[in-house]
Amino acid sequence: MPKLLILSSRPEEYRKLVEGAGLPGLELVASANPQEALSIGVDCEIVLGEPSLIREVLPGLNTLRWVQATWAGVEPLLDPSLRRDYILTNARSVFGGLMSEYVFGYLLFHERRIFERLQAQREHRWDGSVTGTLRGKTMGLLGVGSIGAHLAATAKHFEMTVRGYTRTTEDSPAVDFYYHGDALLEFAQGLDYLVSVLPNTSETRHIVGKSLLGVLPRHAVFVNVGRGSALDEKALVRALKEGSIAGAVLDVFQQEPLPHAHPFWSTPNLWMTFHTAAPSFPADITDLFIENYHCFIKGHELKYRVDFGRGY
Amino acid sequence: MPKLLILSSRPEEYRKLVEGAGLPGLELVASANPQEALSIGVDCEIVLGEPSLIREVLPGLNTLRWVQATWAGVEPLLDPSLRRDYILTNARSVFGGLMSEYVFGYLLFHERRIFERLQAQREHRWDGSVTGTLRGKTMGLLGVGSIGAHLAATAKHFEMTVRGYTRTTEDSPAVDFYYHGDALLEFAQGLDYLVSVLPNTSETRHIVGKSLLGVLPRHAVFVNVGRGSALDEKALVRALKEGSIAGAVLDVFQQEPLPHAHPFWSTPNLWMTFHTAAPSFPADITDLFIENYHCFIKGHELKYRVDFGRGY
Repeated sequence: MPKLLILSSRPEEYRKLVEGAGLPGLELVASANPQEALSIGVDCEIVLGEPSLIREVLPGLNTLRWVQATWAGVEPLLDPSLRRDYILTNARSVFGGLMSEYVFGYLLFHERRIFERLQAQREHRWDGSVTGTLRGKTMGLLGVGSIGAHLAATAKHFEMTVRGYTRTTEDSPAVDFYYHGDALLEFAQGLDYLVSVLPNTSETRHIVGKSLLGVLPRHAVFVNVGRGSALDEKALVRALKEGSIAGAVLDVFQQEPLPHAHPFWSTPNLWMTFHTAAPSFPADITDLFIENYHCFIKGHELKYRVDFGRGY
Repeated sequence: MPKLLILSSRPEEYRKLVEGAGLPGLELVASANPQEALSIGVDCEIVLGEPSLIREVLPGLNTLRWVQATWAGVEPLLDPSLRRDYILTNARSVFGGLMSEYVFGYLLFHERRIFERLQAQREHRWDGSVTGTLRGKTMGLLGVGSIGAHLAATAKHFEMTVRGYTRTTEDSPAVDFYYHGDALLEFAQGLDYLVSVLPNTSETRHIVGKSLLGVLPRHAVFVNVGRGSALDEKALVRALKEGSIAGAVLDVFQQEPLPHAHPFWSTPNLWMTFHTAAPSFPADITDLFIENYHCFIKGHELKYRVDFGRGY
């Protein structure tokens, strides 16, 4: 009979959801505290929870076989000093729709000049000027996993052209043109929107830097919903101050929360959110966990397994 | 050899586009001025242009057979005192995508609390609170023609539930539940978003009034991208002031431009635009015109024909 340790800042919410699913032969303990978790769950085989908390208990779990992370990013568990003798699965599949809402919310906010319209209303000014449209614009995706594929599908729904820059994969039918390796600058040439969904790996570090930003048109907008490390933050501040691109929407940063003195807070045409683009809703994550649990007890392959070497 | 009169505020743009299409056997004159239009185009069989301008020349065109309006709404040509001995087609088909951009731009602006995030940034405040999501929400469409069908498809893409209120038609596969006739209040019960795409007819006048607004939940948002006449403006001001609904997004009004003293300018939680939701791009309209022109010269039925009696 497998034992599950829930280690999350919302332990009772997860406990209710998992218990409600009536999974066959599952024993369950839950905590928000790594110390307590170790005392009640040291003999668990499965952990469901937040990577930053799980990291604390990882060395003590001698019977551990599987960790289901409630996040898409699992950096805290990728440190090479940590054990890798278990199956790690992430929650990448549940964030596509939420990320599409976020990215397209900001793209439409920009194209449809929602802020300027509010301003006109405040001034009692009938502003009949024509706004932009997403239709016919080109979006470039840095990274096309399950989140990128959803963004691509949404872009096609809005009649955009979609380019994808990936290591090797060409899986999404919604991507019109794929680019790899050396073709990074070619990929970026003429983009209206550049969207990074890249995870934090040694290969993605500062990939959005001076040269990449330098080939974007002046009207281009950069959106980062992957990891902050993919962006050279100084290069972006410079590009925005010089007006060499039109704007940036950032949900992730090299340091979070963003330090109070960071220039981003007041960089022109930079709109920021607070790692809130795709909230992790326990109901979604639990659905995913249940699906994987059935695979687990049958000895089948689990979904959304993280490759420790690759980093995602 | 048919003669085409272009009567639009952008005559040269349309002239170039239509000439560029090289339509067989078409003679073409263009003007932005009804007087001039009559002098150069009195013997035309076809008119392409804006209903408000066309209305001025209508009585003088003795050989008129077909009018292609550049708008979706053709009210200026529906006055019962005007002739109806010609085929009137509108441009309803080209606005679906643009309307989806507008409506979902504002829905996401609301759900994702974009304004509040900008405010937090201005205050250098890391606001990690979770926002809403469209997924799982219910949208009710008042009117499901080609624009409504596009909105429904976009709503499904964002995993919403879609209800449609129509006279009789049930054509869109993206609508989950249809309502007709007396079922108006049942249709509105529990909606998260109520979106009106209704044209201006005697039957739609003030359909969004006290009783309809009264059954909406307090968190509901009303969006009007149809015609201003569908809304009882006083009832909306009252609902917003009392907080019986959460917000309204209005692109159309009973009187446009909105009078300077109108209460809408400063009604709380009312966001307005200026009949700018779906701009009429000449390239789109010309594509539609060309398609219909080929039908016209072959004697086939034209697309998007307006029923004068029905009013759309």
